[in-house]
Amino acid sequence: MYKLYSMQRSGNSYKVRLALALLETPHRVVEIDILKGESRTPEFLARNPRGQVPLLEIEDGHYLAESNAILWYLANDTPLRPGDRLGRAEALQWMFFEQHALEPNIGAAYFWLALVRGGRDLQTHALDDWMERGYAALQVMENHLKSHDYFAAGQLTAADIALYGYTHVADQCDFELAGFPAIRTWLRRIEQTPRFVAMNGRPADTPATA
Amino acid sequence: MYKLYSMQRSGNSYKVRLALALLETPHRVVEIDILKGESRTPEFLARNPRGQVPLLEIEDGHYLAESNAILWYLANDTPLRPGDRLGRAEALQWMFFEQHALEPNIGAAYFWLALVRGGRDLQTHALDDWMERGYAALQVMENHLKSHDYFAAGQLTAADIALYGYTHVADQCDFELAGFPAIRTWLRRIEQTPRFVAMNGRPADTPATA
Repeated sequence: MYKLYSMQRSGNSYKVRLALALLETPHRVVEIDILKGESRTPEFLARNPRGQVPLLEIEDGHYLAESNAILWYLANDTPLRPGDRLGRAEALQWMFFEQHALEPNIGAAYFWLALVRGGRDLQTHALDDWMERGYAALQVMENHLKSHDYFAAGQLTAADIALYGYTHVADQCDFELAGFPAIRTWLRRIEQTPRFVAMNGRPADTPATA
Repeated sequence: MYKLYSMQRSGNSYKVRLALALLETPHRVVEIDILKGESRTPEFLARNPRGQVPLLEIEDGHYLAESNAILWYLANDTPLRPGDRLGRAEALQWMFFEQHALEPNIGAAYFWLALVRGGRDLQTHALDDWMERGYAALQVMENHLKSHDYFAAGQLTAADIALYGYTHVADQCDFELAGFPAIRTWLRRIEQTPRFVAMNGRPADTPATA
């Protein structure tokens, strides 16, 4: 059975938990609180030298890092990965967009403004760039969603899950989604998917010491 | 035949040109100078609403953006994409790492310090973060390369091409690679691959107005 090292309030971790729920894939969750340094212990670094969650233990001693690589792996031979080559390419296109345009800006803002106590004061030099580039990413998404229900292949794919991760918490870190009606409709569409679980809707199965 | 919209000095564009060369894939290159606004014209934005290169025209009117999504598409059924599921997952793991850990830091530093006249003065507030996070990414790569010749599946894959793109110009934007001997050995290994082309070793085939 898969074992997922995850932090409940991490958008990147949540993506993987959401995919596992939608796919009804059996798994165990080990909660890792990165704010308490639990991703920097010698034991964790032996599993993932990057010191990051999420981390999926695929089988004994085989670990996969990077939320979107995990998503793509889990989506193999499921409806979350398009069946045709061009559809798969389009899904990956949006997943790479997510990691360089959305995550380093809205993801960073969420981490420092919503999770880290006093984080705003530590990052005042970066806030304007995050807001400018985060809004630019949201505008690219809005323009696409004006004429599409989903991001790739006309269906819910791993790309939607990847983008949902931080978009749905943008309003918790200074971003205002009122001007992005297509994004807001798409967020509700994702949330109405059968077996959807909210970021904080499901406790970790096991404590960090497991 | 594929048509690639590319900027000669863009690391993201170069990745795709390098893959096309290694694979001996027939293609045309259209040079787009983003510093002259050529990626923001109405004609280009109709092809790629993100206003970014590289952009691959796969067939008439079908475009694929995002350098690593293009790499993965081109690598289909070639030695650049591992044959087994876990190997493919590991390659994508490093390609996503590249887009959130390397490109937003070393890629950004390269763009503003090496390409944009006066860019350093515009980005003084961001330089320390880019250096800190860029060096952290290089250390993760160094640690891996101490015991591996390539990043995934024990062979040259699209992941190596993705990471080569900005790593090989890090020394042009304040990063010092002297402390990363395994990375320097790996850079030389890539450069000795048959059919390797340097970033500026091959002129665009057609002018931007084509």
